[in-house]
Amino acid sequence: MVQATARIPVSTLQQFVTDLFLRLGLTEEEAAITADVLLAADIRGLDSHGLARIPMYVNRIRSGLVNLRPNFRVIAETPATIAFDADNGMGHPAAYRAMRRCIEKAKEIGLCMATVRQSNHFGIAGYYATMALEEPGLCGVAMTNATPLVVPTNAREPYLSTAPIAVAIPAGKERPFVLDMATSTVAWGKIEIAQREEKPIPAGWALDRNGEVTTDPFAAVALTPLGAFPELRSHKGYGLALFIEVLCGQLAGAAWAKYVAGSRGEPRPSNTGHAFLAWRIDAFRPLDDFLAHMDEMLHELRTAQPVVGAERVLVPGDPEFEAEADRRANGIPVHPKVLQELRVIATELAMPAPF
Amino acid sequence: MVQATARIPVSTLQQFVTDLFLRLGLTEEEAAITADVLLAADIRGLDSHGLARIPMYVNRIRSGLVNLRPNFRVIAETPATIAFDADNGMGHPAAYRAMRRCIEKAKEIGLCMATVRQSNHFGIAGYYATMALEEPGLCGVAMTNATPLVVPTNAREPYLSTAPIAVAIPAGKERPFVLDMATSTVAWGKIEIAQREEKPIPAGWALDRNGEVTTDPFAAVALTPLGAFPELRSHKGYGLALFIEVLCGQLAGAAWAKYVAGSRGEPRPSNTGHAFLAWRIDAFRPLDDFLAHMDEMLHELRTAQPVVGAERVLVPGDPEFEAEADRRANGIPVHPKVLQELRVIATELAMPAPF
Repeated sequence: MVQATARIPVSTLQQFVTDLFLRLGLTEEEAAITADVLLAADIRGLDSHGLARIPMYVNRIRSGLVNLRPNFRVIAETPATIAFDADNGMGHPAAYRAMRRCIEKAKEIGLCMATVRQSNHFGIAGYYATMALEEPGLCGVAMTNATPLVVPTNAREPYLSTAPIAVAIPAGKERPFVLDMATSTVAWGKIEIAQREEKPIPAGWALDRNGEVTTDPFAAVALTPLGAFPELRSHKGYGLALFIEVLCGQLAGAAWAKYVAGSRGEPRPSNTGHAFLAWRIDAFRPLDDFLAHMDEMLHELRTAQPVVGAERVLVPGDPEFEAEADRRANGIPVHPKVLQELRVIATELAMPAPF
Repeated sequence: MVQATARIPVSTLQQFVTDLFLRLGLTEEEAAITADVLLAADIRGLDSHGLARIPMYVNRIRSGLVNLRPNFRVIAETPATIAFDADNGMGHPAAYRAMRRCIEKAKEIGLCMATVRQSNHFGIAGYYATMALEEPGLCGVAMTNATPLVVPTNAREPYLSTAPIAVAIPAGKERPFVLDMATSTVAWGKIEIAQREEKPIPAGWALDRNGEVTTDPFAAVALTPLGAFPELRSHKGYGLALFIEVLCGQLAGAAWAKYVAGSRGEPRPSNTGHAFLAWRIDAFRPLDDFLAHMDEMLHELRTAQPVVGAERVLVPGDPEFEAEADRRANGIPVHPKVLQELRVIATELAMPAPF
């Protein structure tokens, strides 16, 4: 029997997830931030990175692999830079605090780069980048590393993470430009979907244990960098992943991707690293000129003639804004399997599940 | 008759190119910088961006489209940011000066972002990023926009440039990590090579005038973003190009790519824009720790087991370092067609061509 996918109001889920993390031992503030970041993924339609990841976080907290009373602290600071140590606390509040401080410093001085070491999986990078859009005239960038999944061009085994980067740039009348992407061809979640559906995957998404291209989602053990094939310049996706890796690993002083633990069950602290950038537009030119210039470009792109077979040309972030409008109004459609997992966790924590 | 490709010493070419730009009316300083940037492309094996581009620059200078006595000036400055107007001068000296100042400000305060408007085609982005490696403990990034050549996912026509980005990160004992890439699948030069050889191009490199994939290099009029196909996530390459575009176009206050002129013969000033970043590693963590951490990663990557059929795993920049070692020792192999074009220009300028 196929169970219908329920639509659950955002506020119901937010309260439930906050309570869940409170019962697991997070402070009120950290539970609220973590719930907000996780729900933002589901609100924006990025279902693989929100509620569906809760069992992973719960397992790591219960296994004692995350510090629930971290001493989140500054380890280095200059007027335009700041480096944090998250003391193995939850990644979401660590990243939130780092980006908040990055934004404050950028407002003061024009530009700031912030890094975080000793952190954990932080959810969607887009959450932190779009924090910059809450301030007038600011742009934001957020990056992280993660467990090794991506195979460098010519290599057999994964050395790099999917190395996501998110960018948020405001516009005037047009919707902002919000890029939130892994630098791998696809995220691992796409392989899992194909496994559930028992369908082949397109050639170029994933590699088998010999580093060879596979279309069998059950043979897939690793991902290609953006570009997919050497002939289609996968070394560029590899190079971009390496750049993000250097900022989040070597510059932050976290582990580099091959040695990051976390989402794949490794029984040791993660030492994930993050990096953030924020800057004031009016440090470079008058804000109104910039916003009008953005509007001009984004309008031209959104009204560009589509190729035969395509409906329209999108600006990065458009699908997420549309999902958000729908889901805030009509609730979040939660997959029955995810709901069931959340009910099990609720029962274990002796808390009500209002769905 | 196939003419053998001559090897010409770097110093001979450097003197020739400097003289050529002097005779065209550049100042001594600007001619020297322009020659140095152009030769760096040939030295690093990026043959499409050096000597081969001289006829394009010469044509634009002779057509009066470039200002040979520009008032290169600061239009906005904060402690960690600086914005320049290049007054339609040559792109190479404008970009060189902007990156030099960006580096100086980063050394002082830890981090700097610089933009340039009203500029022209600046050669290889990698030249400016690697300027940061001349200083101990600095990292550099360089970006530019250019004429429209790249078709956003789902669109029919080019709106964006190949939006190159270069990144230079030092290591300790290992060679540095130097990424220098267009965010399109390939650069236009690859299509030109296929045209000369009358060979088909791989599906995914280029699009015809209807925005459809073509393998005919003569039908190709535009390029795909990295990712090549929607299924292989070309919208990510499009998103990255758009990010670089925003920094070089909207933030710098230059034209955005669709309205940039220059390398395709448009008879109007270019208004190309550039953006640069530099930062001190020791603003985030001790430099020696960073360099050792870079060495560890780069060594693991360079000694990684290759997939069957591949010789070795490379770090971005390795092919260019190897080309540089060869070409500095043995001279630059200049294509006979390029040499002939340079001889014609030399004759027109009544100057000797020492090859």
